[in-house]
Formats: sequence, structure tokens, C-alpha cells
Amino acid sequence: MLAIERCTTGIVGLGLMGGAFAYALRRCKAQSILAYDISEPTLAEAQSRGCIDEGFTVAQSMLSRCDLVFLCLAPSTLIRFVAEQQHSFKSGAVLSDIAGIKGSIVAALESSMRADLDFIPGHPMAGSEKGGFAYAQNCSFTGKNYILTPLKRNKPENLAFLKDLIHRMGFSRITETSPAAHDRNIAFTSQLCHVIAASLIDCQSDTTITRFGGGSFEDLTRIAQLNAPLWSELFIENSTELLRRIEEFETSLAALKTFIADKDQSSLVRMLQAVRERRAAMDT
Amino acid sequence: MLAIERCTTGIVGLGLMGGAFAYALRRCKAQSILAYDISEPTLAEAQSRGCIDEGFTVAQSMLSRCDLVFLCLAPSTLIRFVAEQQHSFKSGAVLSDIAGIKGSIVAALESSMRADLDFIPGHPMAGSEKGGFAYAQNCSFTGKNYILTPLKRNKPENLAFLKDLIHRMGFSRITETSPAAHDRNIAFTSQLCHVIAASLIDCQSDTTITRFGGGSFEDLTRIAQLNAPLWSELFIENSTELLRRIEEFETSLAALKTFIADKDQSSLVRMLQAVRERRAAMDT
Repeated sequence: MLAIERCTTGIVGLGLMGGAFAYALRRCKAQSILAYDISEPTLAEAQSRGCIDEGFTVAQSMLSRCDLVFLCLAPSTLIRFVAEQQHSFKSGAVLSDIAGIKGSIVAALESSMRADLDFIPGHPMAGSEKGGFAYAQNCSFTGKNYILTPLKRNKPENLAFLKDLIHRMGFSRITETSPAAHDRNIAFTSQLCHVIAASLIDCQSDTTITRFGGGSFEDLTRIAQLNAPLWSELFIENSTELLRRIEEFETSLAALKTFIADKDQSSLVRMLQAVRERRAAMDT
Repeated sequence: MLAIERCTTGIVGLGLMGGAFAYALRRCKAQSILAYDISEPTLAEAQSRGCIDEGFTVAQSMLSRCDLVFLCLAPSTLIRFVAEQQHSFKSGAVLSDIAGIKGSIVAALESSMRADLDFIPGHPMAGSEKGGFAYAQNCSFTGKNYILTPLKRNKPENLAFLKDLIHRMGFSRITETSPAAHDRNIAFTSQLCHVIAASLIDCQSDTTITRFGGGSFEDLTRIAQLNAPLWSELFIENSTELLRRIEEFETSLAALKTFIADKDQSSLVRMLQAVRERRAAMDT
């Protein structure tokens, strides 16, 4: 079984998440941490900060050396990258990704993946509304969730190694599920929330409205400062599930609206009380 | 002009906000802090914690001594309380409230208020999803917004005194506006956000969904643990403005939904980019 202390680890894409993985892998005492990115200044910055050992602008030079690779790219770039670099990976390497959708990624990569590579799809539930390597050091993994959607062909010892590493990086809870269940649930917890935050800003043109803020508005719209190309891709790739979730939300919103329009205080209190209890019943 | 160090201050209702005012007034060195509440144990608890000097379960005994009174009650209770206790207040007293709606409160109180009392309507934009005096000590005012909707009859020196006190209690920004503008803006920053949070929980029956949480869902639903009777009252009292805001939000949500359904990536990117820029342009 792999041990991180004896692993040459590669990170593909040194953005916010790739950078956060580099820092976390350093804390886990990875033997060496290599990174591929299109930006030389970013690689130089990461090296000067000590979170990577070597930077590469040619992927093949790095991939051929790595026992473990984290593919930290947006979904469409990820699929293209793996197709192009299929033959660059070291034989026996363990690969994982961080993409916010799993169904289409797994469908695209599973069939075409070289038989001697072990790709374990993953989704770390961490991040920030501030993108890019510059914010990576502040992107904490501590106490966060991690979703894995293992494939039947994954080697049990590689899965066990990855799960152990995830915990050592600070994540507190790993959920193993199917790509379909991932996409269904993430459509709710993540994508729907981003759609709501964006809509809330879209419908308010007065930028001085924050004078009337008391915390709720700030909480609900923190994530509105999203990476537009990335989230557009996630929304469209997962559109079936996301549209269903938006419609369920619209139904609940319409019910609440009707109670308010009818000044039906008892139904409103009953609904809000049930909401309060359900939220309290959800673990954090 | 009043000085808080020579003021006998009264708090009506020792819940989360009343309690937070008691602690804040103590830090401001109010000469004495009295509180009226229907719960004797709460009064005893507050006295033992040193944030009030005396507790009262009969309002009249307290009100007749107070130079400054903070009415920390839900809107309907506030209107009833002031009507019943109209003759209990000390002549020349300055009164303020904390209600989350101002139009109906001001309409109800302004005309009936004794001519020798100076009622300055206010709304501190602080609070917590955890209600009751027990959480008051953790309810911080530091850096928060405060809205005042002064009346024409308010004495300038009393308004100046209250504003100075609000700043000394920790609030960083005071906005003076009309009750109508308050209600219009609060319908958006506060009530709409609570309606959204409640709808988001209402449409999700799986309480284990938090395994898939990455921060967004948690941020958007923190306020779903709301005080159901209080918020029902606020929603219904401000229903005209709130319904308009819900509809504006629904329109933006529908536009986003259409882009997703049409897989119209360029429109989606354009809208999300505009949202990102608008949110960044809003001061915090």
C-alpha cells in the first residue's frame, strides 16, 4: 500500500483548490510535491512559499514521475486534460479529481482510463468565494466534508490509502456514494445555493443596500462572488438535477408566499416551526 | 442633554435583544439599568450576572423612574404594551424600540404617544438565530448597522444623545431614513432572506443532507432556525413590501433557470459575472 511519506505527488492546476492541496500535502509530509500549471509565476510563487518542490508547465514531465495525482481542474478542462495526457501517467498511479459534478466526469473518464491507472473520483467540500492560488493558504480543510464516488475497479488498498490521506489533510467526514447520488445531493447543497445567492444579487440594483444588512443578507450572498465560467459549467453539466431542485425550492417558496399573501398566521407559524425543527435535526 | 452616566435606563422585555442592550448599557456605564419582564427567573439571572440593577414584573413601577426606555418587544406586543402603559412613563422620557418593521409601529404609536414623551423609532441590525436572554451575552453589536426612523417631533438633543449612545454600544453605522424606506429595504435584506432560508429547508426532507454540505448550505440556512411567531408577525405586517421582493427574486431565479434549461452558457456566464461585480461593489 502507498504511504504519503514515500509518494511523489502531483497536482494538476494550481488554483485555489490545487494550492490548498499542496499546503495540506506538505503538512502530511508527502515525500515530494510537484505541480503542473500554465502559469509560471504561480508555480514560482508556490515554490517560494515551500508548498511545492517543483513546478512544471509541461504536464508529461511531471506525470511520468507521480505515484499520486490530484487533478484540480474545472470539469471540461479535466476531461480534455486526461484524454490528452492519457499516456503520460506513471504505471500504477492513483488519480483523483476534485470536480463538483461526478456523473459526466466518471462517464467520460472511466471507459477511457488506462487499465493500469486507478482513478478514484472525489469532491472535497471546501473552497472559498475567492479563487486562485493567492487564497489557497487560507482555504481550510479542517472539519470539512469529502465525497468519494469510488469505481468498482478501484483497488481497495488505494481507496483505503486515499481515505486515510483525506482524514490526515483535515477533512472530518468522508461519504462514499454513487456519482448519481452525489450529483443529486450537490445540486441541492451547493448548486441551488449558488443559484439562489446569484438571484438575490441579480434582483437588487441598489449597491448601498448593505446599510440595511444585519447578517442574513451577507450570509446568503457571500457565495455570489462566484467564478462565473466554472459555475456556469457546473450548472449546465448537472442541469437535470439542478432544475428539479430549483423547482422544488420554488414550490416551497410559493407556499410561503401564499401564507403571507393570505395573512394566514397560523399556517405560517406551523410551517416556520417545522422548518426550525428540521434544521435543528440536521447534523452540521 | 441626557448623559448615559446620569440616566436611569429601563429595558422592557429581557429576551435576546433586551439582554444584549443590558450588557451593552452596562459597558457604557449607564447610571442604573432596570428591566421589566414577565419571567422572574430571567430577571434574577440578569441581576446575578450584573447586567441589570433591578428587575420588575410590574411595568409601572419601573417606567415611572426611567429617563430612557428601550422597548424590546415583538411588534404586536409592543403596540399593546405602550397603549396599556401610556401613563406609566416618566415625563420627558426618551423611548426607543427595536422592532423589525417601522411603518405600522410608527403609525400606531406616533399619534397616541403622550406629548411629553420622545419616542425615537429604531432597529438595531443585530441578533442571532438563538433566542432568549441566555444567548444575549454572545449577541455582539460591534460593527453592526443601526437604522433610525426619527419623527418630526423628536427633540434634536435627544436624537443626538441616542445616536451617540448607539455608537458607544458598538454599532458602526447609523442610517436615518423614513419608516417606509426602512420597511422596503428590510423586506429585502432581512425578511426575504429568512423566507428563502425557510423555503430551502422546507423543500429538503433528508436531514442527513448536511453530509454533502460545503459551507454554502450552512450559510444560507443558519437563519432558518427562526423564532416562528415573531417572524410570522414581521412577514405579515410587512407583506406588501415582502411579496414584491419575493416576486422580484422569483423573476431573477426564473431567468437563471431558463439559461440553465437552455444550456445557454454565454448568457449564464454574463449574468453570473454581473452578479459577482455587483456583490463586490456593495460595501459590507
